[in-house]
Amino acid sequence: MKFIIAIDLGGTNLKIGLFDQSCNIRHRALLSTKSFRHKQGLILAIIDSIRRIIRDKKLKRQNIQGISLGLPGPIDVQKGIVHFFPNIPGWKDVKLKSILERRLGVPVYLDNDANLMALAEFCRGAARKTKNAVCLTLGTGVGAGIIIEGRLYRGSTFNAGEIGHIPINETGPKCNCGGKACLESYVGNTPILKAARQIFKRNVSLEEVSALARRKNWRAIKIWQDAGRRLGIVLSGVVNLLNPDVIVIGGGVASAGEVLFRKIRQTIAERAMPVQAKHVRVCAAELGSDAGLIGAALLAKEGL
Amino acid sequence: MKFIIAIDLGGTNLKIGLFDQSCNIRHRALLSTKSFRHKQGLILAIIDSIRRIIRDKKLKRQNIQGISLGLPGPIDVQKGIVHFFPNIPGWKDVKLKSILERRLGVPVYLDNDANLMALAEFCRGAARKTKNAVCLTLGTGVGAGIIIEGRLYRGSTFNAGEIGHIPINETGPKCNCGGKACLESYVGNTPILKAARQIFKRNVSLEEVSALARRKNWRAIKIWQDAGRRLGIVLSGVVNLLNPDVIVIGGGVASAGEVLFRKIRQTIAERAMPVQAKHVRVCAAELGSDAGLIGAALLAKEGL
Repeated sequence: MKFIIAIDLGGTNLKIGLFDQSCNIRHRALLSTKSFRHKQGLILAIIDSIRRIIRDKKLKRQNIQGISLGLPGPIDVQKGIVHFFPNIPGWKDVKLKSILERRLGVPVYLDNDANLMALAEFCRGAARKTKNAVCLTLGTGVGAGIIIEGRLYRGSTFNAGEIGHIPINETGPKCNCGGKACLESYVGNTPILKAARQIFKRNVSLEEVSALARRKNWRAIKIWQDAGRRLGIVLSGVVNLLNPDVIVIGGGVASAGEVLFRKIRQTIAERAMPVQAKHVRVCAAELGSDAGLIGAALLAKEGL
Repeated sequence: MKFIIAIDLGGTNLKIGLFDQSCNIRHRALLSTKSFRHKQGLILAIIDSIRRIIRDKKLKRQNIQGISLGLPGPIDVQKGIVHFFPNIPGWKDVKLKSILERRLGVPVYLDNDANLMALAEFCRGAARKTKNAVCLTLGTGVGAGIIIEGRLYRGSTFNAGEIGHIPINETGPKCNCGGKACLESYVGNTPILKAARQIFKRNVSLEEVSALARRKNWRAIKIWQDAGRRLGIVLSGVVNLLNPDVIVIGGGVASAGEVLFRKIRQTIAERAMPVQAKHVRVCAAELGSDAGLIGAALLAKEGL
């Protein structure tokens, strides 16, 4: 029996999962990454957590098919290089694949978390049985993984899917990416929380805005409707360009639920071209916070 | 020796070409389509022009590998149905493939002209030796064909590539497609000619605006720079989303040349994400007005 060790690295947590060959999870562990301020410390923590699972589960090297990591930033999938992490400082063109393979002696696979979420939802979640899918993650950033003709499409330099950086206006707020009026500057975590603070005159969490909206607080509803309308406008363009079967939406912001999804669907119905709009299904991600781990396991299984 | 008969149907002309098996053109003819106000008349004209080339070139049925048509509207490639033509009235869900096959007794292939232009530029023109390409046609409409991992990508209902209907602002002029603030409403033939008429206080043609711009008329330069900036903004989003190797631009409006291309390139450099922007090449189509015919011939050859 062979196993896959999958890791999902986020800004706050490192999730680790042991998967069997059918990509079913057998064991899981969680580690806070906040204490690892330096690259070297984080790499050692990754190696330690892998070694611990190998030891605890009494695995042999030859029983490990591969180790697979979902990472929160742009990755050169072919060379196994982390270009940088937008929310973890100190990483620049790190050859993580070869570092880990040297230390652990098994094949290592890397990809970015949005791609692996898309892979998971396509193989096991809301996008299964489709051919063309766009899978969004709404969180601090707005990212996407794209499935084209049944395969994960990564782009010429592995940087496709940056849906959060499609401009929504000719001009607008300057974005961290260097662009202007990017979708993410309107519907990322930070701008939504800022809007909520302005409206409620105090700090409110996303969960609270969602709870208020469920209790019919019209100011909270307005926040989600504004976000949904803007997501819908950009997705109308994506629908006209890519004519996908399905748009899957997950991530923290998506937990706002129906108030957000209704507005997205309505905007696409109004703004996208009739044939494409009628064909596309807009639905919530099904795999929740496990999507990244499952996608990583699938990546190692397929050996992509 | 087998031959392919390729047809490129436009709003004003029907081009017909006889191609050998290497997709080199051997003979061509042109027919005005303006006089065919009715669907039936146009179909008969297509059949007549095919029969004429068969007769003139003394071809036998068994020497014809296929007949292939590039058409100015949405096509169901699989079923061979023309959904409609935005600029030719009277066509609604016409089973053109089966009509022609019944009358002519050889395999018939249909696709829309933007897809075939992309196929031609990818196999023989400015996008050759790339894997991922977006090929724009700037004319009355703004369309595109998309090449993904070396294959023409048509979308789930064959309606991908509608780059002219990506919104460039949250709100703006109503578009024929039903949407709002679509790119095409700003940089199609009609809005550009309208802007020129307002600026020059008389009717001017696109050729004249281009000629004036070449002679450093700043008002004409401004027209092309505005168009280039807007194309560049939408293409920045496409570059961030698809991370292509190349963007190929052809069609009437593209003949404005460097004044337009320079602004497009500059805007992408400023607005798209650094890695994607640095990688992508923006260049003029190489096959000119033959792209549609060549693409049609390639379609029949590959039998897609």
